[in-house]
Amino acid sequence: MGKALGVGLMSGTSLDGIDAVLVEIEEKEDNVDVNIIDSYTQRYDQDVRNALMDVCSPSTATVQKINSINMFLGKEFGGIVNKLLKQANISKNDVHFISSHGQTIYHQPFDGESNLDVAGTLQIGDISVLSEETGIAVVGDFRTADMAASGQGAPLVSYVDYLLFNNPNKSRAIQNIGGIGNVTYVPENSDSDRIQSFDTGPGNMVIDEVVYRLTNGERNYDKNGEMAYRGTVNHQLLTKLMSHDYFKQEPPKTTGRELFGNQFVDDIFKEYGQMNPEDLVATVSEWTVLTIAHSYNQFLIDKGFKIDEVIVGGGGSYNPYLIERLNSHLPEVNIFTHEHFGMSSDLKEAMAFAVLGFQCILGKYNQLPSATGAKRQVIMGKIAYTQPDALERIDILRRGF
Amino acid sequence: MGKALGVGLMSGTSLDGIDAVLVEIEEKEDNVDVNIIDSYTQRYDQDVRNALMDVCSPSTATVQKINSINMFLGKEFGGIVNKLLKQANISKNDVHFISSHGQTIYHQPFDGESNLDVAGTLQIGDISVLSEETGIAVVGDFRTADMAASGQGAPLVSYVDYLLFNNPNKSRAIQNIGGIGNVTYVPENSDSDRIQSFDTGPGNMVIDEVVYRLTNGERNYDKNGEMAYRGTVNHQLLTKLMSHDYFKQEPPKTTGRELFGNQFVDDIFKEYGQMNPEDLVATVSEWTVLTIAHSYNQFLIDKGFKIDEVIVGGGGSYNPYLIERLNSHLPEVNIFTHEHFGMSSDLKEAMAFAVLGFQCILGKYNQLPSATGAKRQVIMGKIAYTQPDALERIDILRRGF
Repeated sequence: MGKALGVGLMSGTSLDGIDAVLVEIEEKEDNVDVNIIDSYTQRYDQDVRNALMDVCSPSTATVQKINSINMFLGKEFGGIVNKLLKQANISKNDVHFISSHGQTIYHQPFDGESNLDVAGTLQIGDISVLSEETGIAVVGDFRTADMAASGQGAPLVSYVDYLLFNNPNKSRAIQNIGGIGNVTYVPENSDSDRIQSFDTGPGNMVIDEVVYRLTNGERNYDKNGEMAYRGTVNHQLLTKLMSHDYFKQEPPKTTGRELFGNQFVDDIFKEYGQMNPEDLVATVSEWTVLTIAHSYNQFLIDKGFKIDEVIVGGGGSYNPYLIERLNSHLPEVNIFTHEHFGMSSDLKEAMAFAVLGFQCILGKYNQLPSATGAKRQVIMGKIAYTQPDALERIDILRRGF
Repeated sequence: MGKALGVGLMSGTSLDGIDAVLVEIEEKEDNVDVNIIDSYTQRYDQDVRNALMDVCSPSTATVQKINSINMFLGKEFGGIVNKLLKQANISKNDVHFISSHGQTIYHQPFDGESNLDVAGTLQIGDISVLSEETGIAVVGDFRTADMAASGQGAPLVSYVDYLLFNNPNKSRAIQNIGGIGNVTYVPENSDSDRIQSFDTGPGNMVIDEVVYRLTNGERNYDKNGEMAYRGTVNHQLLTKLMSHDYFKQEPPKTTGRELFGNQFVDDIFKEYGQMNPEDLVATVSEWTVLTIAHSYNQFLIDKGFKIDEVIVGGGGSYNPYLIERLNSHLPEVNIFTHEHFGMSSDLKEAMAFAVLGFQCILGKYNQLPSATGAKRQVIMGKIAYTQPDALERIDILRRGF
């Protein structure tokens, strides 16, 4: 089988913009090889961002707005793919597929009490519009298929971590430090059944909010860990933060803004707001690292799951303070970032969706029941093509080209 | 190429239930042969109907409800397909595909003033859920692709009329008498460019509402034209009704409840409410027929487009008064119903979506720009399959089986 050329598109819950990545994908025996050829990131204009905030907030989301923004975003996504291909000097006729996560506007992981109040998820950015705009077949709207098999529709990237990082001789923890921290554990020589995946706790969420408040909104993250490096950890606060119930809970487990959002930071400031600002940033940074190391020790290593390597991704991988401290807490483990493997931490999710779309086209399961809680494996994704040649190019992939 | 086995699913804007039809489809040189093997119609329970009414009304549709009902309906549709297959004693392993229109919850045919207020359409009933529930690949969500090419997303059935009824020697008018009346004109030996399609005016909408009011809600349609047969047409009212501006407007044109809904019937009752009830039903029935005959004469025959046969479908085709009067107004034309061609007027739309889904799977254009106003031909539809064998069965169709 040859190499497929695909585009991955990710627009995250932060609503700041869209990442598009052009990748070359090759299927190997038990995994997948991905190389990033080019990428394009577009920030949303303020009016678009406001419209997205509207449809993402249940109190302001109307069916009229959802209807229009679904179509608008499909076209917007298409425009970004076209810019990426122009920049890379690649013709759409050479691209086999696009895979788009879409913009999540609602996600309800569990059934409610009434028989009509069922678990579900809504991603918008119409894939038929995206296909017509680009002339390329599009895979998208992945999460509902997992939920159809009683999964929570998340996390989806664990399966890609497995495909990218499984290794015959090394057990690896793939650690994402985004808003939330989450790990995919891929034991050496593992099949997909033995993957574990859970949220370790906060990622950058608390650090970012603390920096934002301390600088009166001038900075929204601790660039290169500069503030943390200048501060000293307050051990009384650190101990208090580590005593949170979430860290005692056995995996699988997920968390979010409900636990570590603004309310949580309010509580820190109430008691410790008078501390030296740099000490405060150092303390929440140290805590973030400690929650990761602690999770590994308590829930993996102590249970006999060895870790040879940690591969860090997400925005936090660009903070050397976090990496350095993680190294110091896990002296016997090698710590890498995605860049070490020729990938980009920033573009990881867009790349991951390219892989999920590729697997969907080939008719291969692209989801991990052990990660999402689904009752069985499914192929996630819907496919749209509005022109015959777009279908022909995904058929080439199916026929083993 | 052999025969494909597919299921068509239609849930109309009346929100009364779902039609499922099992069909055998065969591709011929320039058209498609369809045979109905079995069918199953399920009425919605009152609580489901109420929930659907909620999400179809902009003032009560919340994103939470849309999110849940989208998933709920996907499963509901799947349950109906499973019942149909059980009734027909057919294994899901023998069914190549399902094609589902979905439940329309919003449709905006034209762009608004702001750059974010764009034309769009929302059909719910998640196709991944439907696929997982049945084990069969599903095509659905057709309309957005047409709108991506600047079409109005409707009417979609015209293309199927062309595929089913084009004939080397006969020019045909395919007349649907649903709530609204609409015609697809298929000239003899025509390619798809020469099809015309427009709404002739009211279908059963006004007759049904008049009967409902005259019987104080006891009847909601004039069964077998019984009331009309007993009445006498009031020519003063008939002339007044025919003077409506819509009938002067040149096609292509579409209409709906905005023009011929409750407000329109209010106006009739204000002036003519004291008439003999049967005379009133006879008059609006005669008027309905006259708007069809008048449309043919004025917009087709007088312009040199001959009509050899009229093929009537929709609920109105079961009203012999309408058929008889149409015969009398068009003495030189042969009037048939769909049943004459081995089809079912009731199941026409479900069958039509089976045909559109089949064409999507084959990668063939399944839309008529002349009917929808689109700038170019597109392949409409999105495809979902959650299990590998479901994909295999649509691949068989693609490879010409």
